[in-house]
Amino acid sequence: MTGTIGFVGLGAMGRGMADSLLRAGHVVRVWNRSPEPVAALAARGAEPAGTLAEVFAADTVVSMLADDETVERLVLDRALLAGAAATLHVNMATVSLALAGRAEAAHAEHGIGYVAAPVLGRPPVAAAGQLNILAAGEPALLARAEPLFAAMGQRTWHFGDRPRQANTAKIGANFLLACAIESMAEACSLAEANGVRPTDLIELLTATLFPGPVYTGYGAMVAERRYEPAGFRLPLGLKDVGLALDAGAASTVPLPFGGVLRDAFLDALAHGDGDKDWAAVAAVARRRAGLPD
Amino acid sequence: MTGTIGFVGLGAMGRGMADSLLRAGHVVRVWNRSPEPVAALAARGAEPAGTLAEVFAADTVVSMLADDETVERLVLDRALLAGAAATLHVNMATVSLALAGRAEAAHAEHGIGYVAAPVLGRPPVAAAGQLNILAAGEPALLARAEPLFAAMGQRTWHFGDRPRQANTAKIGANFLLACAIESMAEACSLAEANGVRPTDLIELLTATLFPGPVYTGYGAMVAERRYEPAGFRLPLGLKDVGLALDAGAASTVPLPFGGVLRDAFLDALAHGDGDKDWAAVAAVARRRAGLPD
Amino acid sequence: MTGTIGFVGLGAMGRGMADSLLRAGHVVRVWNRSPEPVAALAARGAEPAGTLAEVFAADTVVSMLADDETVERLVLDRALLAGAAATLHVNMATVSLALAGRAEAAHAEHGIGYVAAPVLGRPPVAAAGQLNILAAGEPALLARAEPLFAAMGQRTWHFGDRPRQANTAKIGANFLLACAIESMAEACSLAEANGVRPTDLIELLTATLFPGPVYTGYGAMVAERRYEPAGFRLPLGLKDVGLALDAGAASTVPLPFGGVLRDAFLDALAHGDGDKDWAAVAAVARRRAGLPD
Amino acid sequence: MTGTIGFVGLGAMGRGMADSLLRAGHVVRVWNRSPEPVAALAARGAEPAGTLAEVFAADTVVSMLADDETVERLVLDRALLAGAAATLHVNMATVSLALAGRAEAAHAEHGIGYVAAPVLGRPPVAAAGQLNILAAGEPALLARAEPLFAAMGQRTWHFGDRPRQANTAKIGANFLLACAIESMAEACSLAEANGVRPTDLIELLTATLFPGPVYTGYGAMVAERRYEPAGFRLPLGLKDVGLALDAGAASTVPLPFGGVLRDAFLDALAHGDGDKDWAAVAAVARRRAGLPD
Repeated sequence: MTGTIGFVGLGAMGRGMADSLLRAGHVVRVWNRSPEPVAALAARGAEPAGTLAEVFAADTVVSMLADDETVERLVLDRALLAGAAATLHVNMATVSLALAGRAEAAHAEHGIGYVAAPVLGRPPVAAAGQLNILAAGEPALLARAEPLFAAMGQRTWHFGDRPRQANTAKIGANFLLACAIESMAEACSLAEANGVRPTDLIELLTATLFPGPVYTGYGAMVAERRYEPAGFRLPLGLKDVGLALDAGAASTVPLPFGGVLRDAFLDALAHGDGDKDWAAVAAVARRRAGLPD
Repeated sequence: MTGTIGFVGLGAMGRGMADSLLRAGHVVRVWNRSPEPVAALAARGAEPAGTLAEVFAADTVVSMLADDETVERLVLDRALLAGAAATLHVNMATVSLALAGRAEAAHAEHGIGYVAAPVLGRPPVAAAGQLNILAAGEPALLARAEPLFAAMGQRTWHFGDRPRQANTAKIGANFLLACAIESMAEACSLAEANGVRPTDLIELLTATLFPGPVYTGYGAMVAERRYEPAGFRLPLGLKDVGLALDAGAASTVPLPFGGVLRDAFLDALAHGDGDKDWAAVAAVARRRAGLPD
Repeated sequence: MTGTIGFVGLGAMGRGMADSLLRAGHVVRVWNRSPEPVAALAARGAEPAGTLAEVFAADTVVSMLADDETVERLVLDRALLAGAAATLHVNMATVSLALAGRAEAAHAEHGIGYVAAPVLGRPPVAAAGQLNILAAGEPALLARAEPLFAAMGQRTWHFGDRPRQANTAKIGANFLLACAIESMAEACSLAEANGVRPTDLIELLTATLFPGPVYTGYGAMVAERRYEPAGFRLPLGLKDVGLALDAGAASTVPLPFGGVLRDAFLDALAHGDGDKDWAAVAAVARRRAGLPD
Repeated sequence: MTGTIGFVGLGAMGRGMADSLLRAGHVVRVWNRSPEPVAALAARGAEPAGTLAEVFAADTVVSMLADDETVERLVLDRALLAGAAATLHVNMATVSLALAGRAEAAHAEHGIGYVAAPVLGRPPVAAAGQLNILAAGEPALLARAEPLFAAMGQRTWHFGDRPRQANTAKIGANFLLACAIESMAEACSLAEANGVRPTDLIELLTATLFPGPVYTGYGAMVAERRYEPAGFRLPLGLKDVGLALDAGAASTVPLPFGGVLRDAFLDALAHGDGDKDWAAVAAVARRRAGLPD
């Protein structure tokens, strides 16, 4: 058992993950920008932390923050890292490869072990401790993190000894998600314009070639034009496509589907769909074809 | 039970389908351009037909031909249809919407019922009588065809009372297949260029977000760069993408993923991969990124 | 001087071209589907022909028809060619490479010389005898045609001894035109969304990097959103992009800009802009960006 | 006449621009990261500056730096701006709209007038004082800058009173340049694959539809596959396409041609063409089509 675990970022995902750690018997010290989630976790046995420095006084820190900017501002702070007693930071956010590199370097500079462990799964899955965890980092550090992963996830997937490898896998997974949605959007528009009910097409596909949660869940949303409430907001989808495109640019990997996705998401934003689920990219395919909203 | 069933086209798919009809107790009269499959089916109890006219003397005709051109030449022949005794033709080929329209009109002109019933499934599935059958046409005609579908398939999916609706669904399904392959091709190139083994990425994805035969089967081919032997040859894939693009053009449905697919398949053909599986489109993604063959 | 020249197709372009031949002193026998242009040319000294056979009784035939379908139906008629006295047919239409090949073969079969000579220039340029003529065919045939070209055009450009080479050049030129329009459409949307007047951007560009009729003329239409009256209707633009894409498909040349153009033109048609100038593709770029019509 | 002009950035462009100011009789104080160009300009009458602070002690500062990063590091330095006596900074670099916004804000904060004035023209044009200058900023500031523009350019184009408007126009111009090159690359591949010499096609086009320096100059490079020496290096082209895509992303303007360009440039970089002219994007089009290098 590790000692106290610091936990940063109690958003929709993080609160369930921290709670999973508590349920597994870990001592968890939590910090969040807004105080409510801290209080809620404290009521369940967590230690509330008033500052990030208190969190980084723990032996191991887990963070689950929203994006590059937040990670950079909060946990790549030089003073914070310089003063940290922590010897392991497990960053579970979905971040860019560029940030992954800077984070690795910053932690190395301050002698803090650094592991990347982004996840697959929505908030209910996080709350149930059933995430899929994509992990990369030095083997010894991963071994230290494994009990935490076991508490938060159903399975840990290893991608190598460099943190950025896990971020790459996560970016690739999200890219495939976006591609699946767009391909269903185009196919459903083609179907409808030719007299086939999109729901009939999706029912066929998910019962045969494309079982599983993505085609079933997003397929229904696309076919039924049901984009609210948002399970995953469209601007986040655009951000994730951007992570793939940026990773491609830095490694000279053209991603023609990625370019199409980018344009489709921008088109959706330009038409006011920024608060809808990223399945609303289907409305773009419909509009291009002159189909009614 | 219907009377004698004429069957045209004993290719890799058609021979299994005709055999399924035989096994179900139907009297089947078979014709094929080359004689060997006719003899093989005759040995299993089919009646060999020397001419297409003999086939169209049967009450019901099923055809399973390669493409538009073959369908047009063989079974849309005016003299053949004018002299036919058949009152129902079940066309199970994957054809264009334009051909679907011409076929419907030609049969109507000659008072022959016409149903479109393309299928999902490879030759072993056809041989086992376990196809998924996508059917459209007048309800009374579909009812007549249902015993045949029951013999050849595990399930019949209905898309409407106009034959072209079934062709639309089939084109949509193949379009999604091609999109899935290309998206994995791009994601695997991105992964490899950033130090992640494509097989690791595919293993993660197929165990979580993307179960099912398409991501599992093609994912392995893409990740392992195993494009031979061809289960479905690349030029056929280009043809199917072309069916989608043509359908989109005729119904003013832009298909930006379709345009990317078209270019990728052409690129593969330009590099001599015409005899490989359409998963070889992954080699295009790799080449674009400067990754080794 | 050649003998009587048969002329088929007195549309907006053809009438000016036939008139140019008359002005140069040629004896011209004219045919058109509708009679009015025949009468008008006859009033200027042309011989009216009642049938295509009368035209093909002339030594040399020039045709200027709308598209593949019209060329195939009218002048690739086997009976017409078999009965023709003509020894040279100069086909000045913009046709597909596939048709170019069939036309060359059909004429060869009947011992008629065949030259392709599509043109650059709008109707007023045709009327003034100032076209640019893109010619290909056997040198001896081109030499025979040169006096006709001299009457109709300001300059003849030679692309080789196979007719399809001239058609290729014409398809390439139209492709570049469409690309220029789309690129200005995108740039003007980007400008406007960022507070720059499109007219200011186009004024800069045409005065510096991009002089000439295309950027000046279409640039003004794009920047001012002036798509009517149509100088060149949008469906014709889609047809021309299709000729490029089909030529690319047949020769395994991916054309990613072509795919984008195709989708943009379809989008325009889906929104009812089929009677507007192909510069209306700019409305698609604006709509994608959420800019007002 | 303004007082002393500080000038930052004596690269291939900047040295010609500073020299133009000298020739027009201005007192110019110059700074550059490497000392050689400073010495060269000093030999022609400029005052060498040892620090950026000396430059910003001048009443008016002109800067011509390579990219966002350099601009941000050198001239958006808070200490530099806080200590500056300068009341006008004319930034002539090609930068992102995001940087343009930050620069405007930073100068406003320190009470320094800020004008954006990127240019069209290569180094010889800069040396001749014949640039086209794209200017935006407050009218009174532009009026102060006009004598400098008159010395460096043949004409000043005004895009509004917000600096970022000039940057937008410059980004739009470069985007159109890249589009023109790619469209010629695709058309020339199509031509060659169909038996037409690319040089013949380009000769036709530049003599008719597309006169002017871009089609003539880049057309020859594309058609002749002459990508060296680089007039404008390919990575700079990718950077400029990126500026357009980023501007589009921030203003929700999809740029499908931009996505294609991005992929083509990445493909070129992946194949080692980073030191070649951006016309080397034509090698990508050729490779996609299987044409020889």
